[in-house]
Amino acid sequence: MISQEFLSMISTPSVIRALSVYATERGKEIGYENVFDYSLGNPSVPVPKELTDAMIELLTTKDSAYIHGYSPNPGNPIAREETAKSLNKRFGMDYKMDHIFMTSGAAGAIAHAVRCVTSPGDEVLTFAPYFPEYNPYINKTGAVLKVVPADTTSFQINFDKFQEMLNPKVQAVLINTPNNPSGIVYSTKTIETLASILNEKQKEYGHEIFLISDEPYREIIFDGVDAPYVSKFYDNTLSCYSYSKSLSIPGERLGYVAVNPKAKDADKIVAMCCQISRGTGHNCPASLIQLAVAKCMGLTSDLSVYERNMNILYKELTSLGFEVVKPGGTFYIFPKALEDDAIAFSEKAKKHDLILVPSNSFGVDGYFRMAYCIDTEKVERSLEALRKFVKEEY
Amino acid sequence: MISQEFLSMISTPSVIRALSVYATERGKEIGYENVFDYSLGNPSVPVPKELTDAMIELLTTKDSAYIHGYSPNPGNPIAREETAKSLNKRFGMDYKMDHIFMTSGAAGAIAHAVRCVTSPGDEVLTFAPYFPEYNPYINKTGAVLKVVPADTTSFQINFDKFQEMLNPKVQAVLINTPNNPSGIVYSTKTIETLASILNEKQKEYGHEIFLISDEPYREIIFDGVDAPYVSKFYDNTLSCYSYSKSLSIPGERLGYVAVNPKAKDADKIVAMCCQISRGTGHNCPASLIQLAVAKCMGLTSDLSVYERNMNILYKELTSLGFEVVKPGGTFYIFPKALEDDAIAFSEKAKKHDLILVPSNSFGVDGYFRMAYCIDTEKVERSLEALRKFVKEEY
Repeated sequence: MISQEFLSMISTPSVIRALSVYATERGKEIGYENVFDYSLGNPSVPVPKELTDAMIELLTTKDSAYIHGYSPNPGNPIAREETAKSLNKRFGMDYKMDHIFMTSGAAGAIAHAVRCVTSPGDEVLTFAPYFPEYNPYINKTGAVLKVVPADTTSFQINFDKFQEMLNPKVQAVLINTPNNPSGIVYSTKTIETLASILNEKQKEYGHEIFLISDEPYREIIFDGVDAPYVSKFYDNTLSCYSYSKSLSIPGERLGYVAVNPKAKDADKIVAMCCQISRGTGHNCPASLIQLAVAKCMGLTSDLSVYERNMNILYKELTSLGFEVVKPGGTFYIFPKALEDDAIAFSEKAKKHDLILVPSNSFGVDGYFRMAYCIDTEKVERSLEALRKFVKEEY
Repeated sequence: MISQEFLSMISTPSVIRALSVYATERGKEIGYENVFDYSLGNPSVPVPKELTDAMIELLTTKDSAYIHGYSPNPGNPIAREETAKSLNKRFGMDYKMDHIFMTSGAAGAIAHAVRCVTSPGDEVLTFAPYFPEYNPYINKTGAVLKVVPADTTSFQINFDKFQEMLNPKVQAVLINTPNNPSGIVYSTKTIETLASILNEKQKEYGHEIFLISDEPYREIIFDGVDAPYVSKFYDNTLSCYSYSKSLSIPGERLGYVAVNPKAKDADKIVAMCCQISRGTGHNCPASLIQLAVAKCMGLTSDLSVYERNMNILYKELTSLGFEVVKPGGTFYIFPKALEDDAIAFSEKAKKHDLILVPSNSFGVDGYFRMAYCIDTEKVERSLEALRKFVKEEY
């Protein structure tokens, strides 16, 4: 008999997906260039030429068993070694290859990290606004996701609410900085305060609290923004990364877990990830892309378009009277809606072919997300629609 | 605190892996060409030139967002469509794209299929000899794997023992044909008998029993062997496939679940797989390889070396007095050891630099597996070592 658990999930598709499907359908009617589709976080800029060249070079010069053969369980050793070296150089860390576990994107990284440091029934705390996929990511491990309410003045961490919700069942805290959906980067002060609370609570509870730091937007930081490397501030950190956004390769599903060398049981966690894979059917990301990315360490796509788009939208939104905290990175912006009901707001926007994601599924009411990883030319054309929408509806 | 469940698993590495590591280490001492390493099922033949060409053509002519962008949840539509068409043409099936879910290899396919058709506590039956990774694959879903003892005369199914073990808690039966480790292909008669028993028991129990057919070796069939397409014989079949062996791309992690269109809830199972992915962190196989394989449907590497190697080994083993059922496919052979203790037998073989995997972890005592996906030249050189081993030790 088919699983009732998974059967029940198919009738509730993600709000983001549903809006994206709507945008595509609407595009068939009026031309997709006329739909201002801010729904999906799908990178729009090309991959670096060096990455394409690296793949072609591998395919034309190397033995196919080398390129396409099984990776060892923790991932290709060259990819792990180059990842460790690059992180050490950029952030002054002391990773060895043995602290790096290659994964199928950040989703795969979180799937492994959470299983490593929790047992069924344990609590994992995260902070609103948050990526709604954290719900299945965490809850399907057997742990329980609890969401700390947002600090809507800054979208940094609401530490009062966090302290209220901490309890001995909390085995992990999951953060996402730069943040989807707010675009906010947690400041050094925020990370220091978080680390200090966690260190204190570890002592009080007599067990580790691991910090799972989801960082797929780490390379998309805007001019002058304070963007600390989280793991430097707290030993029990597992950094979860994806090359999807920095290299514009979301379909290739490549990321990693980087275990802080000073973390408790740091020497065992990668080996545990290999065991976890056997149950999830993961068994390594694809081999060619691991080898190619290892040759392009430290490179990114030209990410400047995102800051340009952000500045255009931030200026227009504020001048139209929206309350909005200026993003420090990512390709998202998260303004307050012009009425309390963000879903009604989003529905009205659709009439103007503006596809805006209501904030409810991100754990905050009354806001909306725009994913501006689209052409600047289209962002500029959307401003007229934004103005008309606000004027006619509010 | 780190998970005690996964921590406890790291101290018991797989026997196959451990032997493979030993072979590599020994190779450093005496030259790997002198180690007759029959441990790992890692394809040795090159990928078809057409597949490499398809990848290079995609990389040089297509937009990077097309090649490396997100796949929809069930996989790239072109890959799904071409897979369905190819299966229909070869096996007279009636798959639509909607019955195909792209996965990270057969491991990913099984991870999804089992979660689709079982709930925690349900039983899944499989047949010895069996691939030992089925233990974590199944048991980590919450279902319970039970192993039907082998019919060692033919390595087809032991139907008496199967009937004894069937009970209303059995929600799925997992078969692997062509079989790892025996190399045996289940005959039409075997599959017909299995289907007939399952159909009868479905009625008796009042619920479906799904047949999960693990078929990564489907294209490696030797001359004249009866190799039925399992799904044609039983409606409630989920076929789990990997392109790892047929195209020699195990590192690229590409496979699929094909849902028999007549299966109960056939229209829901792929959508359920998409939900399952959210919990396992899978989120699609890599994009470039999906596109490239879609262009090479029906092609395989030159697989003839495997039959050649099998014939050489089968002839030598039988002439040395081994009891062995002749393989019908794969690149495995599974002879009876020359003493009851297969582990002791394997240890003695190591003295002759013959790396043979003892059968215990495959669910049968007293046999051993040889993975002959190595160069024919090395197979031939190993015969002298085999003869010496038998003469000196037995």
